[in-house]
Amino acid sequence: MESLVQSTTRTRPDTDDPSAPALIRNGGDRPEWLVQATKPVRYEVRMVDGLLDPAHPDLALAGVTERTGNRRFIVLDDHVERHYGDRLRTYLDAHGLEPTICVLAAEERTKTMDSVSHVVRALDAFGISRRHDPIIAVGGGVLLDIVGFAASLYRRSTPYVRVPTTLIGIVDAGVGVKTGVNFGSHKNRLGTYFAPALALLDRDFLATLDERHISNGLAEILKIALVKDMRLFSLLERHGTTLVSSRMQARGADGEVVQEVLERAIHGMLEELQPNLWENDLQRLVDYGHTFSPTIEMRALPDLLHGEAVGIDMALTTAIARRRGLVGAGEQRRIGGVMRRLRLPQYHPVCEVHSLAEALEDTVRHRDGLQRLPLPVGIGSARFVNDVVVDEIEQALATLAAGGLDAA
Amino acid sequence: MESLVQSTTRTRPDTDDPSAPALIRNGGDRPEWLVQATKPVRYEVRMVDGLLDPAHPDLALAGVTERTGNRRFIVLDDHVERHYGDRLRTYLDAHGLEPTICVLAAEERTKTMDSVSHVVRALDAFGISRRHDPIIAVGGGVLLDIVGFAASLYRRSTPYVRVPTTLIGIVDAGVGVKTGVNFGSHKNRLGTYFAPALALLDRDFLATLDERHISNGLAEILKIALVKDMRLFSLLERHGTTLVSSRMQARGADGEVVQEVLERAIHGMLEELQPNLWENDLQRLVDYGHTFSPTIEMRALPDLLHGEAVGIDMALTTAIARRRGLVGAGEQRRIGGVMRRLRLPQYHPVCEVHSLAEALEDTVRHRDGLQRLPLPVGIGSARFVNDVVVDEIEQALATLAAGGLDAA
Ligand SMILES: NC(=O)c1ccc[n+]([C@@H]2O[C@H](COP(=O)([O-])OP(=O)(O)OC[C@H]3O[C@@H](n4cnc5c(N)ncnc54)[C@H](O)[C@@H]3O)[C@@H](O)[C@H]2O)c1
Ligand SMILES: NC(=O)c1ccc[n+]([C@@H]2O[C@H](COP(=O)([O-])OP(=O)(O)OC[C@H]3O[C@@H](n4cnc5c(N)ncnc54)[C@H](O)[C@@H]3O)[C@@H](O)[C@H]2O)c1
Repeated sequence: MESLVQSTTRTRPDTDDPSAPALIRNGGDRPEWLVQATKPVRYEVRMVDGLLDPAHPDLALAGVTERTGNRRFIVLDDHVERHYGDRLRTYLDAHGLEPTICVLAAEERTKTMDSVSHVVRALDAFGISRRHDPIIAVGGGVLLDIVGFAASLYRRSTPYVRVPTTLIGIVDAGVGVKTGVNFGSHKNRLGTYFAPALALLDRDFLATLDERHISNGLAEILKIALVKDMRLFSLLERHGTTLVSSRMQARGADGEVVQEVLERAIHGMLEELQPNLWENDLQRLVDYGHTFSPTIEMRALPDLLHGEAVGIDMALTTAIARRRGLVGAGEQRRIGGVMRRLRLPQYHPVCEVHSLAEALEDTVRHRDGLQRLPLPVGIGSARFVNDVVVDEIEQALATLAAGGLDAA
Repeated sequence: MESLVQSTTRTRPDTDDPSAPALIRNGGDRPEWLVQATKPVRYEVRMVDGLLDPAHPDLALAGVTERTGNRRFIVLDDHVERHYGDRLRTYLDAHGLEPTICVLAAEERTKTMDSVSHVVRALDAFGISRRHDPIIAVGGGVLLDIVGFAASLYRRSTPYVRVPTTLIGIVDAGVGVKTGVNFGSHKNRLGTYFAPALALLDRDFLATLDERHISNGLAEILKIALVKDMRLFSLLERHGTTLVSSRMQARGADGEVVQEVLERAIHGMLEELQPNLWENDLQRLVDYGHTFSPTIEMRALPDLLHGEAVGIDMALTTAIARRRGLVGAGEQRRIGGVMRRLRLPQYHPVCEVHSLAEALEDTVRHRDGLQRLPLPVGIGSARFVNDVVVDEIEQALATLAAGGLDAA
């Protein structure tokens, strides 16, 4: 860690240590200190095959330091436990590890402080050491958000490893630094920025995910495609239907398509995240689809999944962009067509103009006073606007209610 | 924010942006990204006189940016509200500000996630903007810890200002970056490192604090004196009795003593904090007195205050240091004498050897596998040890139970 000191007059000339905070006299006789430091953050995101194959050491070594012993604290999504619990235990056993496995029923409605407390109690019972017993989180975005949050709060931060098992997890929730839970009716109202030590991404897990959750993850991939990656859009356009039906499990030539889709999506996401890890810049391309969707998702609970709400938001904002002339008629139809192939909804009855206007207001507070709304410009690029009005939302809604982007 | 990139082979040579994360191929065909960034932290700690005097702009301007309006969200300790609520409202009124004041009954037993949720609900109701409505926390260490925690979690961080109103707040809780709450029987088990925008320190508030809480704060000042500041120790030795009885309100020549005591304590504390804001180095001088005290404080609740438990810990570790020959007999007596003048206890019935040994074990986990226990070396310096054994704790306890350091 590096420390910076800004100094005018030192009142304690006996302090020679250059890392000591400077004591600044601001004219009068009141002392004033300026404390400055920089926190370095560094983590790895690694794609792997066969994570649960005992021949592969990645998971056994995840988060390990020279002082780590054989104990492991693992939090496991209850569905993942059902599908992979035995294989996971066999794996850990093969590596001579002694796991404590905390199974969590993780779903949007239980993404609360109560679930965080549940993990914290389990950490207390385990007696985790502060820096050298990695917490390993294995599950979907909900589980990763809860466990990452608990890890960041526990003793003010305890290292953890992310192993996403859903598509949203692999391309989004698993690769960034955000953690959090819902509070009241607000999505992710409480949370932290807390980088994992490592994220291990294995698409094998997707074999047991239902198709609806594959579509859900493809929504976040489509987001990246729309705002910055035309080639990714073409891949979705060409292969969307089979990506869903094969659950991204193809091998051979089709497997290479899956691999390219995942790599481009993750790479595009990380390119946006890295220079803005703490969201100092609130104008974020990856917020595309996330202006109206938090409200839509919470109001429609448990009807819509996260990515489905994001899909509706993307349809809505594409329609707004179309009316502004940013997106052509043909482009709008192509976007609508891809959404259909990815089985993403473009509308839901909770979308009425009044609540969407409120959603925009809450987003404006979240983006500190400005809409900073990314709108697509053609396919593969975007621009930020601050002047969307209620009329536009209403007209866009009419397009969606009348059959969607590709029916227009 | 600065972004660093480490790269071997880029698989996407079309990415020219130097801030893009490097895509590293680690031998095989699995892509692996390394995400790196640094987070700069910077905050001001300012001593002020007459903070609530309408002629002084500090409070009105605290946390203000070019986009801040007239609204202020203030969380106020209930005792502070009783003593200073009217003056605070008059002050805000004089500056044309529209405050929303959330009064919180803040005490160690309510330093919980429930209190954090209470603040969060109030923030929701207020509709705080993300970066430009400062949250102002006015109260003791408990309130500052709760509100700082809520601010750090709300939308993953919302700026806040610290206005400590107790002596512990002014010399310790108010000047650093730690926030947190208790969980179960564990002190500060959950928390974050989250710097305030600004800390405003005004000793005027201490006028209404009872003497026991003055002693409580003097314990943290004595801590700094013992581990690193002989001159501060002498000041406490000479003026300890009147510092307590005057509640640090003296003006004139005696006021200069108070000012020097506060400045040295704060300066010493910041010197230790700044190079280690995130406690990457777990060997911390300011942890002196904080090895056994978390357990003592929680077990004795509500009998002992934080500083009183710290006092007992300092007495215990001084006795251990004495037996190791690190502290002389005369020095031990002087330390005991100062503790008596500051009205700090040296013993409590919950201190039995079994629970203190457990306390040490929990601290070892907190300090990641080693005791890293600061022991005084004479007066004004300290050393870290990792080998304190139960026998030593037992013998030190016998000294304290038999009348204390200065009776030996
Ligand atoms: N932190 C971030 O940066 C970030 C980014 C995007 C989304 N998110 C959050 O992620 C959440 C959505 O994540 P999600 O879509 O993964 O939802 P989810 O975690 O609820 O998982 C979906 C369902 O799939 C089950 N499941 C998980 N893995 C499985 C597998 N391999 N096989 C079978 N079933 C499995 C889960 O038990 C759950 O029922 C939202 O709360 C969203 O806010 C966070
Ligand atoms: N974050 C940190 O770095 C840090 C450092 C040291 C201590 N702490 C925490 O601080 C807490 C102790 O703080 P504290 O000693 O200020 O206790 P406290 O906050 O409980 O305050 C003590 C009492 O004084 C009352 N009070 C506050 N200001 C007053 C005033 N001006 N006049 C009259 N009454 C007033 C309060 O209502 C309370 O009843 C502990 O929980 C400890 O863990 C945190």
